[in-house]
Amino acid sequence: MNVILLSGGSGKRLWPLSNDIRSKQFIKIFKNKNGKYESMIQRMYKNIKKVNNESIITVATARSQVSTIYNQIGKDIGISIEPCRKDTFPAIALATAYLHDVKKVDLNETVVVCPVDPYVEEEYFRALEKLSDLAKSKYYNLSLMGITPTYPSEKYGYIIPENKKEVSKVKMFKEKPNVEIAKKCIEQGALWNGGIFAYKLRYVLDIAHKLIDFKDYNDLFNKYETLEKISFDYAIVEKEEKIQVMRFSGQWKDLGTWNTLTESMDENIIGKGIESDKCQNTHIVNELNIPILCMGLKNMVVAASAEGILVSDKEQSSYIKPYVEKIKQQIMFSEKSWGSYRVIDLQEESLTILVTLNSESCMKYHSHDFRDEVWTIISGTGKAIVDGIEKTVKAGDIITMKAGRKHTIIAETELKIIEVQLGKEINVNDKHKFQIEK
Amino acid sequence: MNVILLSGGSGKRLWPLSNDIRSKQFIKIFKNKNGKYESMIQRMYKNIKKVNNESIITVATARSQVSTIYNQIGKDIGISIEPCRKDTFPAIALATAYLHDVKKVDLNETVVVCPVDPYVEEEYFRALEKLSDLAKSKYYNLSLMGITPTYPSEKYGYIIPENKKEVSKVKMFKEKPNVEIAKKCIEQGALWNGGIFAYKLRYVLDIAHKLIDFKDYNDLFNKYETLEKISFDYAIVEKEEKIQVMRFSGQWKDLGTWNTLTESMDENIIGKGIESDKCQNTHIVNELNIPILCMGLKNMVVAASAEGILVSDKEQSSYIKPYVEKIKQQIMFSEKSWGSYRVIDLQEESLTILVTLNSESCMKYHSHDFRDEVWTIISGTGKAIVDGIEKTVKAGDIITMKAGRKHTIIAETELKIIEVQLGKEINVNDKHKFQIEK
Repeated sequence: MNVILLSGGSGKRLWPLSNDIRSKQFIKIFKNKNGKYESMIQRMYKNIKKVNNESIITVATARSQVSTIYNQIGKDIGISIEPCRKDTFPAIALATAYLHDVKKVDLNETVVVCPVDPYVEEEYFRALEKLSDLAKSKYYNLSLMGITPTYPSEKYGYIIPENKKEVSKVKMFKEKPNVEIAKKCIEQGALWNGGIFAYKLRYVLDIAHKLIDFKDYNDLFNKYETLEKISFDYAIVEKEEKIQVMRFSGQWKDLGTWNTLTESMDENIIGKGIESDKCQNTHIVNELNIPILCMGLKNMVVAASAEGILVSDKEQSSYIKPYVEKIKQQIMFSEKSWGSYRVIDLQEESLTILVTLNSESCMKYHSHDFRDEVWTIISGTGKAIVDGIEKTVKAGDIITMKAGRKHTIIAETELKIIEVQLGKEINVNDKHKFQIEK
Repeated sequence: MNVILLSGGSGKRLWPLSNDIRSKQFIKIFKNKNGKYESMIQRMYKNIKKVNNESIITVATARSQVSTIYNQIGKDIGISIEPCRKDTFPAIALATAYLHDVKKVDLNETVVVCPVDPYVEEEYFRALEKLSDLAKSKYYNLSLMGITPTYPSEKYGYIIPENKKEVSKVKMFKEKPNVEIAKKCIEQGALWNGGIFAYKLRYVLDIAHKLIDFKDYNDLFNKYETLEKISFDYAIVEKEEKIQVMRFSGQWKDLGTWNTLTESMDENIIGKGIESDKCQNTHIVNELNIPILCMGLKNMVVAASAEGILVSDKEQSSYIKPYVEKIKQQIMFSEKSWGSYRVIDLQEESLTILVTLNSESCMKYHSHDFRDEVWTIISGTGKAIVDGIEKTVKAGDIITMKAGRKHTIIAETELKIIEVQLGKEINVNDKHKFQIEK
């Protein structure tokens, strides 16, 4: 099975755990069987592999997510990087070309596309396999998966099938109706459109070539910025007659707000937290190293990260976006391909971060124009390089880098470093990257 | 006027802003006319001086509070340090001896004793002056100030005067009655006992000499640990016939819980905080550097410090103590005579703190047996001394101190330092103090 996971952009609705650089699919909030927490994308990847270990999984995403994806999933996953955001048709066309030209997937093979962030169980992934098989149909060009509605939601588009059989031709689509119309649609057997569909690789590639002048994946990648923004629905679905839909009645949840997300948590408290006996239906998600004490709270969520603290009535949690947009803040935590960093102190002319490098990983060789840096190694072993000079390092060692000096550090074991940045203009964009000199 | 302020011990009921080393009287929560926040003790000191600039103010307290008092009030204040906690009679006897022997206050002068932590206005301090004058009485040995009750509280002891005049002889005392009895007492003109009283210095010193065998202040200080624990009420008040009470009807609030404390706040939000339009009667007190967003909260308090985060229904906030007692945590913030430090990262074998030295101040010359330390100066100028060798320092400079090395730093301007402590056993008690070698 070939799967393209659409990994969307920034999410302010799950602030402070999601933000401009960390989307909700990367929040580690679901406990697995080993008692470890995993993110939506880790859960999704693991379950696709569990149902079919041969699956070729490609994430279609922006460059800003690449480090986090590699860090959470490993390097086995394919990533189709969108050079900029251009709506769903260019994104799916690019990922389809990537499958064909990079992953060498045959034109006759089928491809399943689905969003990375619904909360689903194993049955969902078996349904994806069935959808992948359905897409082999000689008659239908597109095979959708429709979710059996659990209530007349106004949030979703509806797929209206010709009949109520498990698989049926699609009669029409209905974009986000009001409750009354939604009720009527459901009576007719309508299904939620969760953006899950499958096609033969050739089909989308042919349309892409008709709409865009490009040779292959690399060419499409290079001219991506010049492409018109157009949705997959508008470019393909609305023009296609030969569409079938498969009903799915298993668990499928859109965990877009704290209210819905906490419904899917196995425990009420993640991280350091205490709830008094008088607390009811209250969830704590705490990524900080200090305890949260809740006294007499009812139907509330308390979420804390290095970015901030949210205390919300669960019902009200769906309205946080405009408030979060007003918060202008330094990014306090970032996952990188080599590990992560966390801001631990912020002053006018200095910034102190805790850097964690995964074992056997390495940050890019780089320099800064406008800041000096001091590393104090607090645990682990590795090798630092400053202006070409190598030095093995261990806890207690100090490396100083004046502005302009090229530097990197290579972790042997997991390496933790206190990095003090000093300068009048400390900015993440003040960075030049180099190849390590041999 | 001679005033002894009784500065009590640790307060868990205002966690996370008060804790084992920071009592509630030091929390900076009240906005003054210049828009700066001040603590209860700062407010109390300022107002006593405002009413009578000649007042001699002495704080009776434990050694652990001395640094914070000097830091918040300055060195002009007298401090009578209790070598250990021994209830109120030994504490007041020691402070009275301190006034006589150290501050050279005459035996015939009067002394006013009051707790440091009620929330009061200027009229209270004028009443203290009046009480001080009343204590000059040739007949009465003790003059109490009684608070006109605003409700039949079960929390306070009651003073029952002989009549309802402004100043009256005390008929009897009633310890924490139930509501019914409290109501009856109030009908008879009873007053709350706020622990505010005045006496002639000679009177308490004479009783102290009768009950304790000591020569002078230094002698009493040195044998303090051997003294019997006994309350001022038991040792003096209950045995004294000649007691008068003065009514006080002005503002007097016991800010012992978050519920009562927030009632006296001028604003709903201190520190970085946002409340949605749907929030009602909700207070945010945030000492952290990250924002708190509150959505749809009613009658709640959210308090955050480096120690932890409290989210509480206001009514429930008086029940936090047993929960806070279960939290075992590293002290994350401490005020010192020379400034303060804040823990910014905590690992198994390292601890990183932000040290702030006030300008022209200096930490003790000291060494550690079991940890190495690294200082990275992030702002300010000063002079570091390591094993007798002096070095001027500025932002960007690094000082390393292996275990055993004597070290200190002297701030010229305000000095900020990132200090990384490294070792298998990092403990605040691992410290030897020295005189700086000349």
